[in-house]
Formats: sequence, C-alpha cells, structure tokens
Amino acid sequence: MASLELIASTNCFGGQQQRYQHHSEVLNCDMKLSVFVPPQVQLSHRLPVLFWLSGLTCNDENFITKAGAQRVAAELGMILVAPDTSPRGDEVADDEGYDLGKGAGFYVNATQAPWDSHYKMYDYIVEELPALIRDTFHCKAKFSIAGHSMGGHGALVIGLSNVQQYMSVSAFAPIVNPMACDWGKKALTAYLGEDKTSWQQYDACHLLQQQGQFLQVPMLIDQGLADDFLDSQKLTRPFEQIAKQINYPAEINYHSGYDHSYYFIASFIENHLRFHYRHLMSQ
Amino acid sequence: MASLELIASTNCFGGQQQRYQHHSEVLNCDMKLSVFVPPQVQLSHRLPVLFWLSGLTCNDENFITKAGAQRVAAELGMILVAPDTSPRGDEVADDEGYDLGKGAGFYVNATQAPWDSHYKMYDYIVEELPALIRDTFHCKAKFSIAGHSMGGHGALVIGLSNVQQYMSVSAFAPIVNPMACDWGKKALTAYLGEDKTSWQQYDACHLLQQQGQFLQVPMLIDQGLADDFLDSQKLTRPFEQIAKQINYPAEINYHSGYDHSYYFIASFIENHLRFHYRHLMSQ
Repeated sequence: MASLELIASTNCFGGQQQRYQHHSEVLNCDMKLSVFVPPQVQLSHRLPVLFWLSGLTCNDENFITKAGAQRVAAELGMILVAPDTSPRGDEVADDEGYDLGKGAGFYVNATQAPWDSHYKMYDYIVEELPALIRDTFHCKAKFSIAGHSMGGHGALVIGLSNVQQYMSVSAFAPIVNPMACDWGKKALTAYLGEDKTSWQQYDACHLLQQQGQFLQVPMLIDQGLADDFLDSQKLTRPFEQIAKQINYPAEINYHSGYDHSYYFIASFIENHLRFHYRHLMSQ
Repeated sequence: MASLELIASTNCFGGQQQRYQHHSEVLNCDMKLSVFVPPQVQLSHRLPVLFWLSGLTCNDENFITKAGAQRVAAELGMILVAPDTSPRGDEVADDEGYDLGKGAGFYVNATQAPWDSHYKMYDYIVEELPALIRDTFHCKAKFSIAGHSMGGHGALVIGLSNVQQYMSVSAFAPIVNPMACDWGKKALTAYLGEDKTSWQQYDACHLLQQQGQFLQVPMLIDQGLADDFLDSQKLTRPFEQIAKQINYPAEINYHSGYDHSYYFIASFIENHLRFHYRHLMSQ
C-alpha cells in the first residue's frame, strides 16, 4: 500500500493543518487529503479520529477552510480527516453537471461504464483510507464519521453499514433518501444502473428500515429549516419519520433561519465534535 | 447617498450573515459588502462595529467564510463589516497581475490614469462606508478597524490617520512599509505616480515615525514566523522597530510555525475581537 506523502503543513490553533497526496489503489488515481493534527499528537496516547465527508462540488479543502472545526479539535485532541469527494485526474470520467462525476462520487462503488474504473468511493472511505490513517497516525482503533449533504448521506450509509468500525455518526442536512430525489436518482442510475435493488445498500432510509432495530450506532443530525433543498432533495425528514417508527435513538435537531451553507455547519460543528469525542473516548 | 440593498442573509451563530450591494459614489461603480449582524441587534443599545480589510486577491467574502469570527462576534454583540478590496465591474481598469487592479486597491486614492476614475478605496473605507453603516445600523459612534496583509496595511494607515474615528486598530501580517517592498512599490507607482512624497501618507512606518509620539491609537499586531512574505514584503518588523524607538504602545506578537493563510487568522481572531471590544465599549 502506498503511504501518505505530506505536501503542505502549517500551524493552526496550536496543531497542524496538513495536506497529503497518495496513490489510491482502490480509486486507481492520485488523491489529495486534508488532515488536522491536534497538538496532543506529541503525547503518547492514541488519538480519536473523525472522518468528514463533504458535499457536491467540494474537495478535501472546503471543510477545513470554512467550518472552523480546528479550534475544538485542538482542545479535544481529535484528528480530523477530510477526503476528496470523488476520484480525480485527467483519465477519470466526468460529466458536465455539478451533481455527477468529479466532485460528486456519492460514496458508492460504481458498477457501470464509464464510471466503474475509478468511482469506488465507498471502498476508498471504508477500507483504504482507514488503513492509511492507522498506518500514519497513532490513533484509536474505531473512528467516527460525519458529513454534509451528499457527505451526510455518505456518513449515514457508511456508519449504518459498518457499526464495527464507527463509534458514532453525524450529519448536517443529509440526503437521506437518494432513491427518491433528483440528485440521488441521477447519480445512482449512472453509477449503478437501472436496477433499483442495487441502490438500496446506499439509501440511509432503506438501511434504517431494514437494520435499525438490530444494529444501532449513536447518531446526531442537524438540519436548517431555511435550506433550499430540504424537501426537494429529501433531507433529514424521511429518515426522522422512520427513526420515530422504529424507536431508533437518533438525535435530530431543526434550526429555523439556517440554510445549506457552511455558515450553518460552522454554527453547530462544535456540538458534533463534542458528541463524537464522548463516544470515541468510550472505546 | 444610495443606501445598502440586502441581497443575501442566513442565520449564523444565532445572528445573521448578510451580503449587501450598493452604488458607491466615491468609487463610481456598484459594490458588494458582507456584514455579520449579531443576535444583540434586537436589543435597543448601540452595537460596536469592527471593519475588516482583506488582502490581495480577496473580495468581501474571504474573511466571513474562512476566519470563523462570527462565533465570538455573536457572543460579544459586535457587527463585522467586510468590504471588497477594490472597485469592481467591466468599466473598471485592471491589470494582469494579482497585485494590481481589481482585488488589489491598496486602500489608497489613485491619482494616475487609468486608475484615478475608480480606485479611491481610502475615501470609500474612511468616509462613504462608515456613513452607510451608520445609516443602516444602530451602532456606536466610533469604529475599530482590522485587516490582513494588504488589508493590515490599510488598517494601520487608516487607523493612524483617523484617530478621531477609530477606537483601536489591529492587523495580521500587515505590509507596514509599502514604499520599500515589491508589492507596495508596484501599486504605489501605478496608483500615485513616481513622486514618492505622495506615497508617504500610505506608509504605516512613515506615519508612525511622523505622528506616533503625538497621535496614538490602541494597536495589536500578530505575525506568523513561517510567513513566506515576512521579510520580502516588509511585514510587521520595520514597524516594530520604530514603535520601540518612539515607545509607541503597540502589542506585537510573533508565532512560530504560522504562515500567511487564514489558518493563522482563524487561530488568533478571537483575541483581536476581544481587544477591539474592550476599546469599543469604552466610548
């Protein structure tokens, strides 16, 4: 396995904001990755790690430049890992739309041409990256995972499907039912084909309905009520309905006046970090 | 005088992150402006206002998306005003370089063609914008002013030259001696011509040397020691030398490992806001 190569590092809140590049065997291309390393890395104990999955059009830098998460991560001693949202490079298939192809990997393993040669974001996030992070940092065995919008979808799906690897899951304005909204249907059709049974493993509502009574992971969701995509792209609410039906212990908070932007994320990220920290430290 | 027209607003840390547009008579073009309005705007008292001047290549949005200043501003009840860094629009003269023309107004009043028909950023920041802010918000009579790099230059020059209007001044990695560095010489030559006596009013070191013993304003400067531009672009150090010579009461802090980026600003912006708040509330 190729290791992470440090390409940039600067101090930030007493820790270091770093950027790495590496060759991804799973994605079959070179990738960049942002990591915040807190000052506590100089101590001998294993640090808690939070993975952050970003939304459509983002790369590995949006979260680390806009969310203001480093302040609390530095206080708690938490490593933040922010991957890119798709494979990258000239040989990687793309689409004219912002919601398919580069910047829009949707955290699935594509099975359809021309996407299937690179778009394996599910395996990249769940398998390859955790191994690279464990190789590079002295960290706790289990991680937590969070994300925004398309990345909220990724965090919920990955967290619900891998309870052995993640201590807790959280999301801002997640796409919870991609099988039933325009963004999701476009991406799942392109990456997985017309057979909707192959979509179900990537639909948080479907997973919760199927598994939520047996496999549970601590979960926190925040949703702005001034979010332009709330109803049209199936954010949060269909998931909340199922959680109520099956008594799934998710904390779901709505906030009037907040939209889909990083101003919303910045306003509530501290609570997410403290939520994950509590669970990460209980292992 | 044309008033500010609200073009965007979303909740942020319990307050509102807003964006305005207006026709600037001074700049002879339409301008955009970002303003953070804290939750305390609903109370009846006059709010403290901090102006933030951004650096080269920035517009009115860099500070508000990257510095994470809204959290503390919301706690303190402080309005943040972030103007653009130059006149804008198709009719405004520009240059191929990132360090001249649009995004690089240098907070001066240009006297040379083709710049003199729009590039009057000094008057825009010192006269037109304060009047518009007083017209729009219920705020305290005197402001404070801060900035980064080219904007740190602007904050120091404007604060030193207008002690009747500003309660306090602060800067991150300011260009303190533009008469003696490449960025400054290029801009001042273009905007003001070859006669260097016309440059002196825009050189913080010159102003401090001339006036610092008679006109004083509370001042805070932070400087990263891993800043690539520290020596070449005359950041902070020449100003510190003069301040020491004349016993000027500026607090100047150096930080090892911090570079010229917004990660540096985000790490220390809280201290700047609290510094300005103390002085703003003493009026």
